[in-house]
Amino acid sequence: MHPSSKRVIADLEELAELTSDARGAQRVAWGPVWRKCRDWFSAKVKTELGVTTERDGAANLWATLPGASKTSLVLGSHLDSVPGGGWLDGCLGVLAGLEVLRRAKAQGTPPLTLHLVDWADEEGARFGRSLTGSAASAGALDAHGELGHLVDRAGVKLPDALAENGVTLDGMGTARSYFDKLNAKAYLELHIEQGPVLQELKEPVGVVLGTMGVERYQLRFQGQAAHSGAAPIHLRKDAFLAAAEFALACRDISVKYSGKTPKSRVVATCGVVKVEPNFVTAVPGSTEISIDLRALDAKILKKMLADAKAASKVAAKHHLVDVSWSPLLHITPRIFDATLTKFVRESVKEVTGKAPELPSGPLHDAAEMAAVVPTAMVFAMSSPGVSHTRIEDTPRPALDKSIRAFLGTVDRTLAHFAAAPKARKR
Amino acid sequence: MHPSSKRVIADLEELAELTSDARGAQRVAWGPVWRKCRDWFSAKVKTELGVTTERDGAANLWATLPGASKTSLVLGSHLDSVPGGGWLDGCLGVLAGLEVLRRAKAQGTPPLTLHLVDWADEEGARFGRSLTGSAASAGALDAHGELGHLVDRAGVKLPDALAENGVTLDGMGTARSYFDKLNAKAYLELHIEQGPVLQELKEPVGVVLGTMGVERYQLRFQGQAAHSGAAPIHLRKDAFLAAAEFALACRDISVKYSGKTPKSRVVATCGVVKVEPNFVTAVPGSTEISIDLRALDAKILKKMLADAKAASKVAAKHHLVDVSWSPLLHITPRIFDATLTKFVRESVKEVTGKAPELPSGPLHDAAEMAAVVPTAMVFAMSSPGVSHTRIEDTPRPALDKSIRAFLGTVDRTLAHFAAAPKARKR
Repeated sequence: MHPSSKRVIADLEELAELTSDARGAQRVAWGPVWRKCRDWFSAKVKTELGVTTERDGAANLWATLPGASKTSLVLGSHLDSVPGGGWLDGCLGVLAGLEVLRRAKAQGTPPLTLHLVDWADEEGARFGRSLTGSAASAGALDAHGELGHLVDRAGVKLPDALAENGVTLDGMGTARSYFDKLNAKAYLELHIEQGPVLQELKEPVGVVLGTMGVERYQLRFQGQAAHSGAAPIHLRKDAFLAAAEFALACRDISVKYSGKTPKSRVVATCGVVKVEPNFVTAVPGSTEISIDLRALDAKILKKMLADAKAASKVAAKHHLVDVSWSPLLHITPRIFDATLTKFVRESVKEVTGKAPELPSGPLHDAAEMAAVVPTAMVFAMSSPGVSHTRIEDTPRPALDKSIRAFLGTVDRTLAHFAAAPKARKR
Repeated sequence: MHPSSKRVIADLEELAELTSDARGAQRVAWGPVWRKCRDWFSAKVKTELGVTTERDGAANLWATLPGASKTSLVLGSHLDSVPGGGWLDGCLGVLAGLEVLRRAKAQGTPPLTLHLVDWADEEGARFGRSLTGSAASAGALDAHGELGHLVDRAGVKLPDALAENGVTLDGMGTARSYFDKLNAKAYLELHIEQGPVLQELKEPVGVVLGTMGVERYQLRFQGQAAHSGAAPIHLRKDAFLAAAEFALACRDISVKYSGKTPKSRVVATCGVVKVEPNFVTAVPGSTEISIDLRALDAKILKKMLADAKAASKVAAKHHLVDVSWSPLLHITPRIFDATLTKFVRESVKEVTGKAPELPSGPLHDAAEMAAVVPTAMVFAMSSPGVSHTRIEDTPRPALDKSIRAFLGTVDRTLAHFAAAPKARKR
């Protein structure tokens, strides 16, 4: 195993030991375990780099290693986790970034300044708004409008949780100008895949093409409740059967628009289903169902949505019910930078002999960064191909290769900007 | 309108006025409005028939008009309602029965003794066990085993609610011997259809062939929860899609086994659906769904159940999940007595010119009676074809015809048993 990989894995194990219990990692943003985790991280940065971490207005935690140029390369991910999370989701990218800085310091002065960031509240596990810190830095967060009213399950208001951490909604608004002053040329992130695609391909490392766009809606099928014995089938207005037909049609839509390769896959998911009156003897009079459509290609995503809307009308007609749509979330696809992605491809191929490409279905801080700075991502295979659980894992050999591919990507990126800094000034 | 119909409708209106609020009828069994309703009924029986009502051990309320023979004809239905119920469900049969006794008394002495019964807790609205009183009289209730542990939503135990009404679980066990002493030759009941079948046929009165058998199960589809973005479609184990496919297959099964006439219709209903983890971003890892299959023909019901089980396995296989079945309820079909049903047919035809036949999907007290005494039922058209709501209704002309057909059925039944009482001794 590469010495860098050994150090990263040792750090990951130390952090897991410090911040996990029997149910998994407990580094939920804004809470005590998360603060302990960040104290550990800052102490490590101080000890190993001789650098003091700094927090911006959105509580993103920054470590800076000055380079020959004031223009910079930003590396990052997140130390926060869902409750009962795993040992890699987020931490891998932060601690691999730490290794980049450690290695650079040992080698002298890097050509560009290196910024390492631990984004605040990537998961949104407690208040439901994910990518909080990176969105603030990208200027994509309306802190008062989006966060001011949020309350956790215990009834704690988000502004009060922020206050416990010395953060204010007003302060969050300053994160964008903090970021602008970094004069960043590029953003790179290593993350676990959180899905089974690379595992199925038997590939330890993947080239991430971008994050998929999301069209998320809540549908309501409205029919007529009736007695399960008294209502003949042909006279029913069964809202659940319409929703069932819609859900199966959405699966067919995702199959129709999926290409044969992982990079062209699209997905459709009905995750929330609520039937009324929900009695064993009642024909469902209404059914609410969510649809979450994702694709990397904006045109295909648009077609999927149109097809899903048409399918909902056909299903409603079949079962003599009405259907209405309410928007929940609309996110455009974020395609990563072509030049940086070429460096990822070369680096992955160098380490593994191949360079499998795939989009990310889940969102990442890199999706927010992609809107404001050239961005690329490396995926480490998940095996089992799951996430947000303590059994989340990446086998050591695959971790090693993913860290090496990430280091290679950093080297290529630095070399690129060091060679022609002016031509690429933003 | 027939004078008897006028009296029955006047009684129904008086009762509705006494026991309804803006949300509908509130005659929930074992409660104060129900007791008020029964006091009103007993007073009416006393005033109009000169008879004192009597309560058996299961709180069924009996009014008796002695006839020339000690053998008897039992007429009945229920005065209790669901919360927010209608003005006809149950009451129509009891008050039409009262008119039978009133008319018989005016005419002298009936050939058979006439017993009119208001069955206790037909609806099971408060504690979930329906047909309580009639099941006790039929010897089909294990009061301690079935009722002893039941609790209402306010936390009141059923035995305590019984005690408020001077009833005990032990006392319920005596209802069967009370019934046996009545020497009943037949049981007749008039009820609203509670469904849209007669309305669709534009027929005001129907001949009920029996009550459908019921096979009711809870199914659990078990797959694997996954992230809506990270999990490719072909690697998912989506438990909800399997349940959706199963529900649609059950609808197809009901269509396959339904004949072309109302009398041969069968039904299948998925009324309860519970998805886990029920997040917009989660592929459902498990789904519980109920199935309620009903048919009048026991052989067809058996085939429907076998087909549904097969369909659940096919759906599970399609979506790479497992399925398990847990029984909830098994009731055999109850076919009504051929001779009495002939009298119903003749009487309905005499009044309406036709005699449309249909099974009852919902259960009735008549289903319990059918197990112990020759039984038949008359249905009044529901329009709108709904029940258990305050908008439940039967237009006055249809009510009139249904009451006349019920009186005709009583007359034919009495004539039949008066002519040959010995030959038909049980």
